[in-house]
Amino acid sequence: MSDDLPQLTRQLSPGAVVTDDAITEGYRRDRAATVPAGRPRAVVRPGTVAEVSSTLRWATENAVPVVPRGAGTGLSGGANAIDGCLMLSLERLTAIREVNAAHQYAVVEAGVINADLGRAAAATGMFYPPDPGSFEICTIGGNLATNAGGMRCVKYGVTRDSALGLEVVLADGTVLLTGSGARKDVAGYDLTSLFIGSEGTLGVITSATLRIRPRPPRDPVTFVASFPTLEGIGHAVDAIGASGVVPSMLELIDRATVNAIEDYRRMDLDRSAAGLLIGQADGAAADDDVRRMTQCCEKAGADLVVQATTAEESDLLLEARRLSGTAVMAAGPTVIDDVCVPPGRLAEMLATILAISADSGIPIATVAHAGDGNLHPTLMLPDLTADTVARAMAVAERLCDHARRLGGTITGEHGVGVLKRSWLRDQLGPASLAVHQAIKTALDPAGILNPGRSF
Amino acid sequence: MSDDLPQLTRQLSPGAVVTDDAITEGYRRDRAATVPAGRPRAVVRPGTVAEVSSTLRWATENAVPVVPRGAGTGLSGGANAIDGCLMLSLERLTAIREVNAAHQYAVVEAGVINADLGRAAAATGMFYPPDPGSFEICTIGGNLATNAGGMRCVKYGVTRDSALGLEVVLADGTVLLTGSGARKDVAGYDLTSLFIGSEGTLGVITSATLRIRPRPPRDPVTFVASFPTLEGIGHAVDAIGASGVVPSMLELIDRATVNAIEDYRRMDLDRSAAGLLIGQADGAAADDDVRRMTQCCEKAGADLVVQATTAEESDLLLEARRLSGTAVMAAGPTVIDDVCVPPGRLAEMLATILAISADSGIPIATVAHAGDGNLHPTLMLPDLTADTVARAMAVAERLCDHARRLGGTITGEHGVGVLKRSWLRDQLGPASLAVHQAIKTALDPAGILNPGRSF
Repeated sequence: MSDDLPQLTRQLSPGAVVTDDAITEGYRRDRAATVPAGRPRAVVRPGTVAEVSSTLRWATENAVPVVPRGAGTGLSGGANAIDGCLMLSLERLTAIREVNAAHQYAVVEAGVINADLGRAAAATGMFYPPDPGSFEICTIGGNLATNAGGMRCVKYGVTRDSALGLEVVLADGTVLLTGSGARKDVAGYDLTSLFIGSEGTLGVITSATLRIRPRPPRDPVTFVASFPTLEGIGHAVDAIGASGVVPSMLELIDRATVNAIEDYRRMDLDRSAAGLLIGQADGAAADDDVRRMTQCCEKAGADLVVQATTAEESDLLLEARRLSGTAVMAAGPTVIDDVCVPPGRLAEMLATILAISADSGIPIATVAHAGDGNLHPTLMLPDLTADTVARAMAVAERLCDHARRLGGTITGEHGVGVLKRSWLRDQLGPASLAVHQAIKTALDPAGILNPGRSF
Repeated sequence: MSDDLPQLTRQLSPGAVVTDDAITEGYRRDRAATVPAGRPRAVVRPGTVAEVSSTLRWATENAVPVVPRGAGTGLSGGANAIDGCLMLSLERLTAIREVNAAHQYAVVEAGVINADLGRAAAATGMFYPPDPGSFEICTIGGNLATNAGGMRCVKYGVTRDSALGLEVVLADGTVLLTGSGARKDVAGYDLTSLFIGSEGTLGVITSATLRIRPRPPRDPVTFVASFPTLEGIGHAVDAIGASGVVPSMLELIDRATVNAIEDYRRMDLDRSAAGLLIGQADGAAADDDVRRMTQCCEKAGADLVVQATTAEESDLLLEARRLSGTAVMAAGPTVIDDVCVPPGRLAEMLATILAISADSGIPIATVAHAGDGNLHPTLMLPDLTADTVARAMAVAERLCDHARRLGGTITGEHGVGVLKRSWLRDQLGPASLAVHQAIKTALDPAGILNPGRSF
């Protein structure tokens, strides 16, 4: 290498730059099983924003690619190493700088675990809504970089909807502050939204001012409905959406997923149902909201609708939903897809998934944030041979194509990373790609920030 | 002029290019009384997106500035003419291309009046939440360009929160599509949010796919509370915010505004109150929500709390709030300010407004979207002499400074335009301004799009 890594090492605190293969190996990939990962030149673990700034300034001067990394729970390969890159891990920026219930915000650093923020907020009677499936291990920085979603999005929005402002280190090392503490702010361009979801290609988010909200005054009310057909689930979700009820959660688990869960841990779910719909409402009208939602389910053909009567029953239903990823992955290699379709299109997308699965011979287990139209069809593979991966990618492409044809998108919350880059080009088209490239070049002229990812 | 305007005229349909002073005069300014306006070279009124494209391509080739214009209801001078510019009026793009209740979206062109979209949505049982004060006359294009707010934002968000995707004509004439029909979409950068609120400096929005929502199943429930002190109103709003109740409206009218309304039209409002708080809740829990909000008001020292018992009473309260702008403006020249402070800061900001008014000798009438912390202190001026305007600007600057000191912003929903440009520089700082300029240059290298506005 012609660059001067020792120069960077000297600028940072001891131990911040790591080149030992035994350690760097653990930083090479996220959880996208089929996406190849390169070998980093070094892992850099800055302890301060100033060290992030020094790292990026050095990388720009030496034209070394930088891959920012949170907890590595991504599913699109966006945090996989590039040969010769610096893996920039934000794991040491773990301060919760402030939790302010009176002004309804928290200031947290990028390396803070999502659930730790949740617990800090709860200690003041507040909560932080975005709850990706990996919330116990993923970081706020990664959540922001990918605009992560979760089960509560259907009522409270995605990560972007909870972000008031960011601290971002730009490619040249400049520290940028965006936003304010105000709920409404039209002072200048919406840079906060631009950096959120940009997958580390425009800057490195080091901290954020996040909106926290008063916790609902009572426990949410939960129900589960079992359906003989997926079409019925689609109709139930449409009816709930049209009713004006805003659930705080509305999740679908299909038959293949139910069976994977039961195989993994017995929970007495109905293995023969086409799918289950698990819904929740919080707030003062929760009972009434759940009553209206269960009526929608019954009218749409549910053959069993049960309302949880205790917090324990409710937790059990949520646990089943939360287990689905683990259970399906325990059954073998997977490709977890992520598409989103407009309201009213869920039934069509579910039917297409079944058809594509039958046609391709690849079993697909689907869970969905049904209230948002956001589906995760998970391809269950016998192995990860090149042939199998190629077949899986062809199936994933067909799923993405169909979501687009329904007016939707190839990714609702997992991001583009490397996995979906070629399909993204079809979705965006040349005019949008040119705008993406112009913005990227404007903010990162040396092209060091996660090159080849996102768009 | 060295440019070839006849060449543009020939490219567009007959009558699209207007140079007659008697007509162009009416396009020179928006409603910012104190902001100077230039003289346009021509007014261009394209009838199609292709004509917008031709206009921008011609303007880029000839380096002629373009000022996009909706209905001219802006309050910051962002749509005022620049000497020698083309005023690009979107008034002829008035098609509501689609209202789709099943998939909860509408596709509308930039020149559609906000209230016309509302009526079209209502005909299908849906509604479009953003409702700026000028909703009966302002256009969706202007709403998007400024990220307009309104009274329903406190529950349903600002214009950006209802936008799923845009059709934008770029400076070189390229037509860009952003977003999708999906609720969650992380495919590429959030270009939709970038263009919204950019005040015509990055592209010209010609149409949008907007989220529409099922109308609440019943009429909202409305209350009014009268307070002997503004501090009490601040505490009531804080308590409502902390309670977890999400009002569908929570508006403040101070004493000066109440008196302006009563002078303009007798409505039997309490002229002696320090201020009124008018609140609404919709949805299934509306009665319960209003009960909890009125309790918050009583505890915070309200001396009269009344719940509207009929739709007529409710409409009357809303009418009083909606009249406030007209009534205050009828009393003489005004500067309508627009600041936003974080939750919990309303009382401090209200106290500062009173102090600055007393200190400066300029009467200030304040209304506020109190639930959002978004205040409109309106400076009531005796005349528009240079001296008075200079004093008014100094007062407005002090108000903006204080909002910033409280963690807020110099503009919550009216935009920067020309009026607030110098103060914006203080709020954003050099790093953010450099990023703004880099993005602007990337998308509009010739600098033709509303130059000198926004940032």
